[in-house]
Amino acid sequence: MSSTESDLAEYQERRATLIRDDRSYRRDIQAPLSPAEIKAEKIVRDIRALEASTIWKQEHASVPHPFPGMEFLTGRNLILQTKLFKILSKMPKGALLHAHLDATVNSEFLLKLALQQPALHVKVPQTITLSNVDSILPEFRALPLDQYSNALSVTETSYEPGTWVSIQNARAAFDPSLGGPTGFDKWVIGALMINPTEAYNTHSTIAKIWEKFTSTFIVSAGLIRFAPIFPEYIREFFKTSIEDGIMYIEARINFLYKTMIGEDGEDNIPHREWLVTFDRVLNEVQENMKRQGREGEFIGARIIYTTIRFITPEELEWYLEDCIALKKEFPHLIAGFDLVGNENELIPLIDYIQPLLKFRARQKEEGVDIPFIFHAGETLGDGSAADMNVYDAILLGTKRIGHGYSVVKHPKIMDLCRERGIALEVCPISNEILRLCSSMPMHPLPILLNNGVPVALSSDDPSVFGNMGLTFDFFQVLVSSEVSGLSTLRQFARDSLEFSTLNSEEKQHAIAIWEHQWESFIEGVVST
Amino acid sequence: MSSTESDLAEYQERRATLIRDDRSYRRDIQAPLSPAEIKAEKIVRDIRALEASTIWKQEHASVPHPFPGMEFLTGRNLILQTKLFKILSKMPKGALLHAHLDATVNSEFLLKLALQQPALHVKVPQTITLSNVDSILPEFRALPLDQYSNALSVTETSYEPGTWVSIQNARAAFDPSLGGPTGFDKWVIGALMINPTEAYNTHSTIAKIWEKFTSTFIVSAGLIRFAPIFPEYIREFFKTSIEDGIMYIEARINFLYKTMIGEDGEDNIPHREWLVTFDRVLNEVQENMKRQGREGEFIGARIIYTTIRFITPEELEWYLEDCIALKKEFPHLIAGFDLVGNENELIPLIDYIQPLLKFRARQKEEGVDIPFIFHAGETLGDGSAADMNVYDAILLGTKRIGHGYSVVKHPKIMDLCRERGIALEVCPISNEILRLCSSMPMHPLPILLNNGVPVALSSDDPSVFGNMGLTFDFFQVLVSSEVSGLSTLRQFARDSLEFSTLNSEEKQHAIAIWEHQWESFIEGVVST
Repeated sequence: MSSTESDLAEYQERRATLIRDDRSYRRDIQAPLSPAEIKAEKIVRDIRALEASTIWKQEHASVPHPFPGMEFLTGRNLILQTKLFKILSKMPKGALLHAHLDATVNSEFLLKLALQQPALHVKVPQTITLSNVDSILPEFRALPLDQYSNALSVTETSYEPGTWVSIQNARAAFDPSLGGPTGFDKWVIGALMINPTEAYNTHSTIAKIWEKFTSTFIVSAGLIRFAPIFPEYIREFFKTSIEDGIMYIEARINFLYKTMIGEDGEDNIPHREWLVTFDRVLNEVQENMKRQGREGEFIGARIIYTTIRFITPEELEWYLEDCIALKKEFPHLIAGFDLVGNENELIPLIDYIQPLLKFRARQKEEGVDIPFIFHAGETLGDGSAADMNVYDAILLGTKRIGHGYSVVKHPKIMDLCRERGIALEVCPISNEILRLCSSMPMHPLPILLNNGVPVALSSDDPSVFGNMGLTFDFFQVLVSSEVSGLSTLRQFARDSLEFSTLNSEEKQHAIAIWEHQWESFIEGVVST
Repeated sequence: MSSTESDLAEYQERRATLIRDDRSYRRDIQAPLSPAEIKAEKIVRDIRALEASTIWKQEHASVPHPFPGMEFLTGRNLILQTKLFKILSKMPKGALLHAHLDATVNSEFLLKLALQQPALHVKVPQTITLSNVDSILPEFRALPLDQYSNALSVTETSYEPGTWVSIQNARAAFDPSLGGPTGFDKWVIGALMINPTEAYNTHSTIAKIWEKFTSTFIVSAGLIRFAPIFPEYIREFFKTSIEDGIMYIEARINFLYKTMIGEDGEDNIPHREWLVTFDRVLNEVQENMKRQGREGEFIGARIIYTTIRFITPEELEWYLEDCIALKKEFPHLIAGFDLVGNENELIPLIDYIQPLLKFRARQKEEGVDIPFIFHAGETLGDGSAADMNVYDAILLGTKRIGHGYSVVKHPKIMDLCRERGIALEVCPISNEILRLCSSMPMHPLPILLNNGVPVALSSDDPSVFGNMGLTFDFFQVLVSSEVSGLSTLRQFARDSLEFSTLNSEEKQHAIAIWEHQWESFIEGVVST
């Protein structure tokens, strides 16, 4: 070896050491890969590289300048054309740990459910016309039989603003110039989802997109918070999750409304009934899976109790007590407690510190254990109240952090997450559509990974974003990195079970099932 | 104290400790603030908060949904309306450590210089018309007297594509339908700068904006690489830098072209003559400052030798030898060596490793010391060749890192930067316009600060971006954080001197002058 050659060899060795050192915290390199996994990893990386230079480098009529990990709402149709997406759709995803129940079911499906309900009515603050159809939001509500409306249409000039019209009539009589019944569907779906123009143009700032985002929940609440729809909504959520390879769910349910509207149109179904329904549907779906010999594909679902961070600290006390009461009656269902809503605008955790500290004392008294699983740091703020929520979530002993987008700014917090096993529920597509980043390559996920912070990828609000299941989120992450590969996705899936609220026995059981599924998946990748 | 109160007090104490711990690496908290600085800090924070809720919350006709730290090219006019900008424009900035000389002078000024030169000619590949004026780029070149052209216009149908027209004629005869001479100016300026539509619409991906960005350098080279213009260009750069409170400069000069065009139109002025010119203008400007009793405001300027990372490793050897020769002749001028250009597309450092290792050996032989000051990690890639440049820059012993945008992904690299004092030349506005982030709140700067990585804020290519001086970059950083304040900017300014290539005696001298300027600045803030 000449001196230049030995210099080079020495350099390459130092380089390998530095890279290894830099990546030593990564969780996806801790377990060795099987020979089949090594093969599958290479296959997936080759397909990724090929598609990066074909599908993602061509100009498409409707998608100018595409690239891997581009804006989801614009790139979605290209994603569906990839081989990578097909492969990932078959991947066993483990658990879905961050999804808001009222934003989990395809909006078209929800509308179909709604159209079967004669009790459901719609009203608008002014007659719908061609010029206002894109900005007027429908308000839905189930009415008691004696209040059913005779009004026929929300598009006729004779419509009296604020009058309820049955949803079936409103659809049938939707003006032909507005597209008739199909126009009605489009109008409602538009109010339930964020479209690319809104995300990337008219509402492209964080403040503006949150206005639109929040409005979708107000619209959908009128449909979902209705006893005949609620179980069917949950059933569809479970069904489509299973189809996407999700075996376990911890769903956040918004308990802000203290009651739900019953079949009779009366607003009087209390929270405990919601849980009875949830439990019933869960059992039915699991029974059904069992009958098909597929019980391993869906081991269960739990609820993270949430309310919204605009209530007063005094009001919060009611919800905390409610949560404890539900936990005592349904110990197998209540998995944790959280406060949700736009952190940039709403009340920070520090302002709730008194009731939250008291909550822990009350749990001891009542002999229950309800971990906090807080949203925190879903923000671009640096030292803002929303960013500071991360400190309080940690100090309050949060089991996981919802989003934790700003955690990467905090070296000490990342250390604590790694050392104490506090996983982050990272929602890549949600973060991008809500304008924390403009595309996936901007997402700070690689920082979390290189710091050894456990991550469970999540979909957040798929009915609003159109990222049903977890495949889209896994896809966006995989194509935006050359470090991450199939073994990174494996780690996400495994960690989603590892950092769930399952007890150690349940966890062991779940992971054993998942590992079996994973092996079959890898065999599938290698053999095709 | 009741038990709740003591719980709360204990909580607040733990919280303060965690926050202090999390921020303990920050460089801006190491030195205590003077009473005047504490006052000034508060004044600046109050103005920032006020303007965030006034100027940045109102809808403006030309700026929909503004926010602090928004897209620079759209928000620039609002920035100019703020009190904060006026204050920062008076702040002593210390050193400018990252700027490409050929992109440092206002484009209108460059055009004015050019229009005084009868030797300068322009040509285009086809006649300029209303439909192509926005896409056709001018090519400029100084011609020898015997090749001066008689052609009159680039907008007449009789124009023969590719024919040189004197710049003076081309301007005078620019078709009135295209705006006449003013239209000519607009056309040229448009080719020298990136406009908001390009950055945020037509070229809003990294790949597309780099195409536009690169094209501006090709256009300007035809004007700047001309002996009569070069010194005036440098003089203006120094002059405007001084006006903005910059006291010392390390400018990157692109030595890719081995010669410059002389006054006689012959392309034969070698690199050493460029340095003679640089030195002469520097001395003249410093003499002039001295005559005004202002010598402390400009203590000097040096050159970082750069060439472009598309040359072969063999070609690089010529430049490295050239750099050594220049260093021997002008030891006070050559400050370092760098390779520049779009890292996402061009050759990574690892491919140049042989000549770069040899460079160090050759320096020893020649008894010179030329530190590497590498661009590295100016990318969103994760494990891409551009991202991996960060490892090689470190292993090659880089003194600072240009951009280092992806350094935040690498915990070990941040540790090394902190421990070894490797500063990052962070160019916030450049990063945003070149689409690494969409606005300042997305910029990873806070991560660097909380990890104790030294940072020198820089402007990169102000003639292309319109961020002349350093005030705009300081502004964007200040309004995008609630942790950072005036003391953070103080640290940037001080660190720009601390991590310059000045020797320890020069550094001590520079910092003493700067500290005096800083005190006056703080007095100014407090007294008005």
